[in-house]
Amino acid sequence: MRLHNPSHRDFGSDNHAGVHPAVLDALVEANGGHVHSYGDDPYTARLAEVVAEHFGPSAHAYPVFCGTGANVVALSAMTPRWGSVVTAATSHVHTDEAGAPERVAGLKLLTVPTEDGKLDPDALAQAATVGRAVHHPQPTTVAISQSTELGTVYTPTETAELAQIAHDAGLRLYVDGARLANAAAHLGVPLRALTTDVGVDVVTLGATKNGAFAAEVVVVLNPGSTDGIEHVRKMDAQLSSKARFAAAQVLALYGTDLWRQCATQANTMATRLAEGLAALGVPVTTAVQANAVFAQIPPATTARLREHWMFYDWTPDGSQVRLMCAWDTTEADVDAFLAVARSAQ
Amino acid sequence: MRLHNPSHRDFGSDNHAGVHPAVLDALVEANGGHVHSYGDDPYTARLAEVVAEHFGPSAHAYPVFCGTGANVVALSAMTPRWGSVVTAATSHVHTDEAGAPERVAGLKLLTVPTEDGKLDPDALAQAATVGRAVHHPQPTTVAISQSTELGTVYTPTETAELAQIAHDAGLRLYVDGARLANAAAHLGVPLRALTTDVGVDVVTLGATKNGAFAAEVVVVLNPGSTDGIEHVRKMDAQLSSKARFAAAQVLALYGTDLWRQCATQANTMATRLAEGLAALGVPVTTAVQANAVFAQIPPATTARLREHWMFYDWTPDGSQVRLMCAWDTTEADVDAFLAVARSAQ
Amino acid sequence: MRLHNPSHRDFGSDNHAGVHPAVLDALVEANGGHVHSYGDDPYTARLAEVVAEHFGPSAHAYPVFCGTGANVVALSAMTPRWGSVVTAATSHVHTDEAGAPERVAGLKLLTVPTEDGKLDPDALAQAATVGRAVHHPQPTTVAISQSTELGTVYTPTETAELAQIAHDAGLRLYVDGARLANAAAHLGVPLRALTTDVGVDVVTLGATKNGAFAAEVVVVLNPGSTDGIEHVRKMDAQLSSKARFAAAQVLALYGTDLWRQCATQANTMATRLAEGLAALGVPVTTAVQANAVFAQIPPATTARLREHWMFYDWTPDGSQVRLMCAWDTTEADVDAFLAVARSAQ
Amino acid sequence: MRLHNPSHRDFGSDNHAGVHPAVLDALVEANGGHVHSYGDDPYTARLAEVVAEHFGPSAHAYPVFCGTGANVVALSAMTPRWGSVVTAATSHVHTDEAGAPERVAGLKLLTVPTEDGKLDPDALAQAATVGRAVHHPQPTTVAISQSTELGTVYTPTETAELAQIAHDAGLRLYVDGARLANAAAHLGVPLRALTTDVGVDVVTLGATKNGAFAAEVVVVLNPGSTDGIEHVRKMDAQLSSKARFAAAQVLALYGTDLWRQCATQANTMATRLAEGLAALGVPVTTAVQANAVFAQIPPATTARLREHWMFYDWTPDGSQVRLMCAWDTTEADVDAFLAVARSAQ
Repeated sequence: MRLHNPSHRDFGSDNHAGVHPAVLDALVEANGGHVHSYGDDPYTARLAEVVAEHFGPSAHAYPVFCGTGANVVALSAMTPRWGSVVTAATSHVHTDEAGAPERVAGLKLLTVPTEDGKLDPDALAQAATVGRAVHHPQPTTVAISQSTELGTVYTPTETAELAQIAHDAGLRLYVDGARLANAAAHLGVPLRALTTDVGVDVVTLGATKNGAFAAEVVVVLNPGSTDGIEHVRKMDAQLSSKARFAAAQVLALYGTDLWRQCATQANTMATRLAEGLAALGVPVTTAVQANAVFAQIPPATTARLREHWMFYDWTPDGSQVRLMCAWDTTEADVDAFLAVARSAQ
Repeated sequence: MRLHNPSHRDFGSDNHAGVHPAVLDALVEANGGHVHSYGDDPYTARLAEVVAEHFGPSAHAYPVFCGTGANVVALSAMTPRWGSVVTAATSHVHTDEAGAPERVAGLKLLTVPTEDGKLDPDALAQAATVGRAVHHPQPTTVAISQSTELGTVYTPTETAELAQIAHDAGLRLYVDGARLANAAAHLGVPLRALTTDVGVDVVTLGATKNGAFAAEVVVVLNPGSTDGIEHVRKMDAQLSSKARFAAAQVLALYGTDLWRQCATQANTMATRLAEGLAALGVPVTTAVQANAVFAQIPPATTARLREHWMFYDWTPDGSQVRLMCAWDTTEADVDAFLAVARSAQ
Repeated sequence: MRLHNPSHRDFGSDNHAGVHPAVLDALVEANGGHVHSYGDDPYTARLAEVVAEHFGPSAHAYPVFCGTGANVVALSAMTPRWGSVVTAATSHVHTDEAGAPERVAGLKLLTVPTEDGKLDPDALAQAATVGRAVHHPQPTTVAISQSTELGTVYTPTETAELAQIAHDAGLRLYVDGARLANAAAHLGVPLRALTTDVGVDVVTLGATKNGAFAAEVVVVLNPGSTDGIEHVRKMDAQLSSKARFAAAQVLALYGTDLWRQCATQANTMATRLAEGLAALGVPVTTAVQANAVFAQIPPATTARLREHWMFYDWTPDGSQVRLMCAWDTTEADVDAFLAVARSAQ
Repeated sequence: MRLHNPSHRDFGSDNHAGVHPAVLDALVEANGGHVHSYGDDPYTARLAEVVAEHFGPSAHAYPVFCGTGANVVALSAMTPRWGSVVTAATSHVHTDEAGAPERVAGLKLLTVPTEDGKLDPDALAQAATVGRAVHHPQPTTVAISQSTELGTVYTPTETAELAQIAHDAGLRLYVDGARLANAAAHLGVPLRALTTDVGVDVVTLGATKNGAFAAEVVVVLNPGSTDGIEHVRKMDAQLSSKARFAAAQVLALYGTDLWRQCATQANTMATRLAEGLAALGVPVTTAVQANAVFAQIPPATTARLREHWMFYDWTPDGSQVRLMCAWDTTEADVDAFLAVARSAQ
């Protein structure tokens, strides 16, 4: 029973999109008959191979249900009971997961101010080394997002520098890669160029926002950087019983080049949107490197646009809005948005 | 890409089965276009109505990813920080969730011995009332499973008695309904006869084992019996971003009578299997009321059977095995199993 | 066996001081014979009366071992599982308790920048009201310190304003009163003028830093503002078995006017020290309202002073130091310090 | 101000007793002047030496406030996030700490039935090895009490056997030594004969019940068996700011032979009491090896005795009572009790 309009798309979130047809096909293929549960199945086995192809032979894959689950499982397995996590003040794990790391894993987040969503090397160096008396929270892990909440992307060199600083101070580096595909698509590099090759210890490989239903993969790149992750995943309720279907979703995207096609589409539409807005004189406030556009659209224009499309205010006063493009956003979607914006001026 | 044999079925677990074709169809219907994420979509809204039709107008539905997540979210929202949970020593939440309630929610489980998987009223009455000094763990919640880990089913009268005892002692009653459909199918009653009508405060409505991919619903029947459950669900990483697809899975089963058909098939096949084994002189050790059969099959026969089908030992020495039937188990599957068992004698 | 020099005092911390002789006398009085344990004793009963005399008839007293324990017990009992705590970025609970609230209670701290250690009303109003979607941490409690980590003191009017803002937004107000005595002594007001009378829900009454061994009291002023605190205290390992001695320590201070004498002495010496430094041209960087002095002493002078007295750098580069006075700091101590400072110029 | 009768003693608990005069003297000696806080003081340093004298040069001492705190800190530091603890069903950590390990540390306790309070080697061997799938709680630590909640004592040989079983299965062995002194006094052996020499990894050295105010010491015997214990202690609010006084209490007992004198007195009085009751025909139900007596005193006699002395029912129906002797219980106390018991027959 269809309860929605399948031809309407908005700019609210890449989570507003549905799933790519190839992902549906993969579910159908994986269906039928009985296979072992909880990851002892041929689709999960194949996923392990695919992950190793992307990230190198030391990489191990742990599929989970969602981004919050991925972050909590990874950070829990990377961080001792008494450790804390350094992260940007704008990071998703700090602002948009309802306190999950603190509640589920007892992890304190040590936040560092940021202008563009990226963790500043000097700020990390300071946060990683000060305050080592027993009274102080003990930083043992660094968490960055790729791309960031502000739609910016770390270059391999930038990530390598953060990894170096972290490792020199005895910390481990985690990358929340819910939109890792968007970052790799932007830079035109393979996934390992952003992770394995530049010293990342653990990364999330996001699939949900890039065309899947509900699947992310925690990928351990440095085997010594986690402890008991398979137990942690189970305790954190992130181990699927019918695990073949979680793996099948990810395989549909990352077992082919579909992941890069989807991410490139989202990125390209964001750039088209940003350029169109800029051409209208609308200030775009953050570099558009992935699939997010932050812009200062006049209130009257915003009101007109919202007669057609949902999108979020970024600042409480609405002076800045966030526009997200998804794997299924079309040029026509963008152009229609820009046309209304133009006419409202 | 198909990596398994879709015509092979075993007796290992109802999680070994795939998904019902109607569930796949529902995903296709729900796909396409953009809708709001995190539960603000028409499929989740429709699910709320369907749940209210099943459980009464006070019932509220909170979809989650999996059974462990359902248990943790429900028990966390029902139990104060300082409360403990009385449960049978054989319960899934105690034996098979890797300590999730303790780890994620800080909940102590107070276990009560059981013969048949059901919580004994006298044992509950004792556990609920002794030990109320500040040193003692404070029981505030009772958790039972329907059907139980041993494939037994509480009658409405039995559940009502437990609810009465719990409420008289100031405790709340939770039902882990990962296989609630199997219980209702066995008794031939509506879902509310086992829950709302007999004093249950919160129940899980299981879908995964009954033909879905990965979906369960925490249903709050007594609105005053939980605190902040929507926040707890988010913190526990059990809120799906593309929530329409979680709802669609459940709707395919519970928006029609499919849930009862699937559960009845699994139950009927378990009964057929148990009767066939008994006819061969194999002791069936627990009453077969849902989709599980516990039996003492001779080792030589077990070895022969395992040349064809996977199933689990229940006792460490293998003297007792567990055979599970699923929504897709066929008469031919059962009869083939029995034929080998017969020939191996 | 004496292992230290009992006539040497430094400026490192009010925790460096020993205990007041009257506290020792109280221990001796409370000793001998058997009384009930875990708080069911006449000293704890008497403490309840004394606390009610200070804070009003609704006040309930829960003695604990230490300041971190007091903060964790109070915040846990005030905050639902899913709640977060708004606090100043400089607060002890954020910077100096090794992440205890996050680890022990799963509480997320939402920090607000501050200049002088005090929580700004506008900043609180914003933090208490933004971000109420399910993704966001949910602020339910506000925590301030009196006096603050920077030695500043909230006036009753200032606290009342914060209480009003908190309550209007549905939050509760907690006061970490490890140095509440110093604040009351500075303002010359009774304890309730800073707490009960201005809308505080829960306060800590500190004793350790003011002349006791190891005793603090969580005082619940608004009975509806906590849940299960007696159970929380036990679970958090803050309930003394031989509770009479915890109560006796507090009674020695707060059952008489000794608490004010001790705090006044510490405050007065801090003021004397600050004035003496200022007279030497040393910048004192924060208003001296309690027993802490923050000053920019030249490095060469600092080095000379440290030949005699221990004290801490406040800034990592040592450009600012913190000097603490205690209940037993004497005029001679201060004057000797100033004499060396003067000679070192 | 004295609020109790210092010449009355009961049989309720060794926590009902006060402190030994030598402990008070030690506090006076440690008082005066300023020393560093949080353990960087000469008394804590001396305690480290004394602990090494008792337990061997590898032993490290971490003073804490109370028994629950000692158990939580030790078990947290010994057990990974994903580990569980095997313990006797009668153990204090399971029955009398209000769920502290679960709440504070997320630790699941896996309980084993026991007759006499001791963990059975066969039961441990089974509990330590079954259930190693990812669904199962993973035992990584074993916790026993010495002496046990039932007043029984493990011989060195018995402890060595448990240590061997634990280590062979990859688990660590923790001893809750709240009454370790009573066990050593009963057996007439040094403390290390019960711990270091027989493979114990971590032990608590109890002082509170043996004549101190509020002090226990977590002693790490096997340095590799804990992780970050100094941070864990701080986070768990078990690090005293004025740490010299915690150390001084312990030094008064364990820096001399006073610990053995106090424990021997309590043990001897328990034996005297048990023998006297047995002579009256009262069944003593558990071997009296430490300072606890469990006996089946007729109800009429119990009522008469309680006109004079407080003590606890052990069974809910009162058919069995528990009588505890303390370091200050006298022969006259015991004989007076027996005289009333005799006269009530």
